[in-house]
Amino acid sequence: MAKLRFNIAMSLDGFTAGPNPSEENPLGEGGMQLHQWAFELEAWRKPHGQDGGETNASTNVVEELLENVGATVMGRNMFGGEGAWEDKPWDGWWGDDPPFHTPVFVVTHHAREPLAKDGGTTFTFVTDGIESALRQASEAADGKDIALGGGANIAQQYLQAGLIDEMLIHLVPVLLGDGTRLFDNLGTSDGPFECTRVVEAPGVTHLSYRPAK
Amino acid sequence: MAKLRFNIAMSLDGFTAGPNPSEENPLGEGGMQLHQWAFELEAWRKPHGQDGGETNASTNVVEELLENVGATVMGRNMFGGEGAWEDKPWDGWWGDDPPFHTPVFVVTHHAREPLAKDGGTTFTFVTDGIESALRQASEAADGKDIALGGGANIAQQYLQAGLIDEMLIHLVPVLLGDGTRLFDNLGTSDGPFECTRVVEAPGVTHLSYRPAK
Repeated sequence: MAKLRFNIAMSLDGFTAGPNPSEENPLGEGGMQLHQWAFELEAWRKPHGQDGGETNASTNVVEELLENVGATVMGRNMFGGEGAWEDKPWDGWWGDDPPFHTPVFVVTHHAREPLAKDGGTTFTFVTDGIESALRQASEAADGKDIALGGGANIAQQYLQAGLIDEMLIHLVPVLLGDGTRLFDNLGTSDGPFECTRVVEAPGVTHLSYRPAK
Repeated sequence: MAKLRFNIAMSLDGFTAGPNPSEENPLGEGGMQLHQWAFELEAWRKPHGQDGGETNASTNVVEELLENVGATVMGRNMFGGEGAWEDKPWDGWWGDDPPFHTPVFVVTHHAREPLAKDGGTTFTFVTDGIESALRQASEAADGKDIALGGGANIAQQYLQAGLIDEMLIHLVPVLLGDGTRLFDNLGTSDGPFECTRVVEAPGVTHLSYRPAK
């Protein structure tokens, strides 16, 4: 059975982006710190066209993220920022050769023609909700898993609906103080999540959970 | 050098107590879930006068909490609840034989005579701030470490002042949705904390940090 797999970097105080995100700094103030552990990895740099980097306990975790993924779902913030293309359609943050290499389904209120990029990434814009996006992604994935990207808002919608099968939090020991919280607007969980794996690595702890449904 | 060691249970969404704490339920709605992993341990039950319980990966972590501790510091909420003894001095949550077995220094705005209990626990009420409490605790500890209990408010004051040497978070995979946040009112950290140990155990992940100062 294909799974919906979600992974996101979160600060110790619970933020997935810092305050005041902008087109220049979509991760908000301090938000880059949440990804420093990844930027240092060869396993991250290579797929992003960068030389060098190291191998450490995070390497396997990052490599697994790409394994058996047949489609990707994300929110419009992750594609291109809050409101960024309401008046001027643009191509998002991801450049000509986005790192997804799968069909990507962007949940948004703004209809738009699909956008094909190099390397197998095609963005399809879904305006009829998260379940429709998941259904379309499942068809495109053809039996493989679906990766759920951020941001926090779309993740909350899928968590609330009980649709996430695996949740991987890259917990980064910094305090951002303000910004976008991952676990917000969710109320209480129906019992505990099941922690399925913990990987300690330089600058980050990778925590895998199976959410309570 | 004696250390100030802080440990607290926190939900995945960042709360150390649920909403609406009361004299009957000082941990707030859902807050007991944060401590379920401990209640099941022999290492916790025995010092609290209860039979039975299991041994698992949390056992060492709990046993270490008590090792080399010569004094304890806590906030007034952990002693006896918000405002609970402003008009009727009472003896707090902890009964006749509190589990601390050390001198305890309670940071409060309300002066009061020391309160001696069985088993080596004496509560001393400190009205001139967190640094005074730490100084008095250091003297009482006589070279041993000082344990910082909660609640979140007093922990924030010590974190903000850069006085915590070791921070152990018992991360419990539930969502409380609301309540008291551990990491609040703190702004941004001066660089990342150093993660010194991770212990995966049933129902909890124990994360040890050396805070950025």
